Amino acid sequence: MKNFNSAEIIGVGTELLMGQIVNTNAAYIARELSFAGIPAYRQSVVGDNAKRLKETLLYAIKQNDLVITTGGLGPTEDDITIETIANALGRKLVLDETVKERISQYFHAYEKKIPLSINKQAMVPEGSIILNNPVGTAPGIIIEHDLFSGGAIIMLPGPPNEMKGIFNESVFKYLVGHAPIKIHSKYVRLIRIGESAAEEKIKDIIDESSNPTIAPYCSDGECMFRVSYTETDNKDISQLQSVIDQIKDRLGEYIYEIGPRSLEQVVFDGLNKLSTSVSFAESCTAGLLGAALTNFSGSSRVFKGGVIAYSNEAKINLLGVNPKTIEKFKAVSKETANEMAIGCRNAFQTDYAVSVTGVAGPEPSDDKPVGLVYIALSTKEGTRVEELNFRGGRARIRRTAVLYALDMLRREIAD
Amino acid sequence: MKNFNSAEIIGVGTELLMGQIVNTNAAYIARELSFAGIPAYRQSVVGDNAKRLKETLLYAIKQNDLVITTGGLGPTEDDITIETIANALGRKLVLDETVKERISQYFHAYEKKIPLSINKQAMVPEGSIILNNPVGTAPGIIIEHDLFSGGAIIMLPGPPNEMKGIFNESVFKYLVGHAPIKIHSKYVRLIRIGESAAEEKIKDIIDESSNPTIAPYCSDGECMFRVSYTETDNKDISQLQSVIDQIKDRLGEYIYEIGPRSLEQVVFDGLNKLSTSVSFAESCTAGLLGAALTNFSGSSRVFKGGVIAYSNEAKINLLGVNPKTIEKFKAVSKETANEMAIGCRNAFQTDYAVSVTGVAGPEPSDDKPVGLVYIALSTKEGTRVEELNFRGGRARIRRTAVLYALDMLRREIAD
Repeated sequence: MKNFNSAEIIGVGTELLMGQIVNTNAAYIARELSFAGIPAYRQSVVGDNAKRLKETLLYAIKQNDLVITTGGLGPTEDDITIETIANALGRKLVLDETVKERISQYFHAYEKKIPLSINKQAMVPEGSIILNNPVGTAPGIIIEHDLFSGGAIIMLPGPPNEMKGIFNESVFKYLVGHAPIKIHSKYVRLIRIGESAAEEKIKDIIDESSNPTIAPYCSDGECMFRVSYTETDNKDISQLQSVIDQIKDRLGEYIYEIGPRSLEQVVFDGLNKLSTSVSFAESCTAGLLGAALTNFSGSSRVFKGGVIAYSNEAKINLLGVNPKTIEKFKAVSKETANEMAIGCRNAFQTDYAVSVTGVAGPEPSDDKPVGLVYIALSTKEGTRVEELNFRGGRARIRRTAVLYALDMLRREIAD
Repeated sequence: MKNFNSAEIIGVGTELLMGQIVNTNAAYIARELSFAGIPAYRQSVVGDNAKRLKETLLYAIKQNDLVITTGGLGPTEDDITIETIANALGRKLVLDETVKERISQYFHAYEKKIPLSINKQAMVPEGSIILNNPVGTAPGIIIEHDLFSGGAIIMLPGPPNEMKGIFNESVFKYLVGHAPIKIHSKYVRLIRIGESAAEEKIKDIIDESSNPTIAPYCSDGECMFRVSYTETDNKDISQLQSVIDQIKDRLGEYIYEIGPRSLEQVVFDGLNKLSTSVSFAESCTAGLLGAALTNFSGSSRVFKGGVIAYSNEAKINLLGVNPKTIEKFKAVSKETANEMAIGCRNAFQTDYAVSVTGVAGPEPSDDKPVGLVYIALSTKEGTRVEELNFRGGRARIRRTAVLYALDMLRREIAD
């Protein structure tokens, strides 16, 4: 099979088209395609409708030599992707005994009755390459074809865990083997600086550098630059590092990671490496900070627990905050944050404790404005508090507070 | 302008195409379109590339009399949606003084310097309808045109909060005014039953009912049916309620809401109505339960706080769990869950307390299998515990545990 010069991702399913589920598969596959070095020019979504799927498919095949579909591989009547693609390519459907056997085993493992629809799910277009599904019943399918200027269609199931399971096990390798170029990418991840401010600081580097290219990607409170180097004949990729070094010179104080890790992961890894322990006292974030650090398996090694001190009584009774402090300075204050962190560190007997108290909105609280957040860090050397003013709605303020709290911890353990 | 018989949603932006952000806008607009009664047949995503955007746009206009775009309305050179659409429709760009004035005011409010790019963002295609942006600078734009069989293009900004702000303030009303049919929809929301089991129980109702139609939408641990009735000439919509009543007869025990509210919202509203108070003791969910209930403004009226008891010491010291209980039965056990809930209710002095302890995985803990979760509810009448076995990965197990914990509370306060 030839190399793929461009790709289109097609999501199949009325639930996508009606907006009942968000098409996270397209974003996942798009990102992987760009890592693999295959440009993606379009994404589309169509419902469970054979006529419109065929039309969309042919339009995609005409313009792109790689088409990846997600969804519509299940056992029900609504699942029409395989038949429609076979029909568009003029291929017969044949029963694949290996697929049938795998599906039987799957149902057997869960002690479920094998449904009659098993034969439907085991029918694949003639000449297909079958990809193992490590977490479900529908297999992935690759069809290499010579329609228009030729290419391949890869069909993957709709449930994201199944799609990713097959993708990581088989598809990525297949794509890299057929990529026209080899791309080396690195993410430079920043916190405490907005997209436009960050871009401004490295505008000349962005403008001057054509290989690698530098592209910003920002979301609530977090910002990153992707630096992508297309390998040339001499295979020298030192230019990638050299541009990253230039960015580091300008933005070093905001960079928490050059690589794939999220802020949560960086903090977790850092705590883990130091065999240190942490606890959280959360008011406005109400558990989001604890939930963020415990996304990782093994987090109990470093995270001992927290108090969600959503009421003044909880701050007083569980964290030992002095009632007079709250009376005088209110719950959202430097002083309360300070005592929350100290009380938390005592209660959990941890090396570090972080507290967060703020006004998430939409209403101000005790005359304190929406977005005002205090974050305190208590260590054996003492306690320090930071006053922050975040913008945005309730969800964004809470999310940003979590990131800043994690970052305060990161800076502490980096020292 | 005529009524719209079908719609396509186009997301514009290289960050979407590269998978750096997920296209949540398409799902939101698709859902609103279906509420408005306008069928959506396709979604697509293109990058910041004028040629491909124009091509995609013309393909969409040819097939659909309504096209909604998101993204590419900002002030930078990458933002090409307005120029490209004006060009495709053969319209001149003109400076809109009202838009310019609004942008100036916006920057003034945030005490920021007005950028030179203001003139670019205030250029709109001749003959446009300008829609106010309540939360940002880029306005929404409607262009009614007579290309192919005529229709309208609605341009909205990419940031979801701005898109939604404009959509809710102006676009939805415009769409309802141009919908070919009037649809009445209701969601029947279920918990503690999977999609296939729920569907099986009402299969005959689904098959027999053509108006209203019944469609299932399920995600991790939650499942819902959307019952959609297309209004006919006699305007009698009693058939909608009659089908919902049939579903209630079959699935009543699993239904937590017939309407728009999430489980979190139902529980919050229920607690609020009873002026009752609750606290949480979380182990494996580590704050997710507290975070879920505090998504709502005013949640401090009912939620007093929680303990994230991620270590045995936290369970013992903050919740008063007997060390012997943990030693004998382990942290993930009926007995520990029981004592966690009782200790939590005492610590926070609340009417109810819910505890969650389980193995989120990926590794088993103390020989207890991944997915085993105990949820206990303590009230002034006593405590009860439920043993559950969830399937899936770490994130799914934690999310499902949160839903079941909320549901235990819901059932209690419903009595």
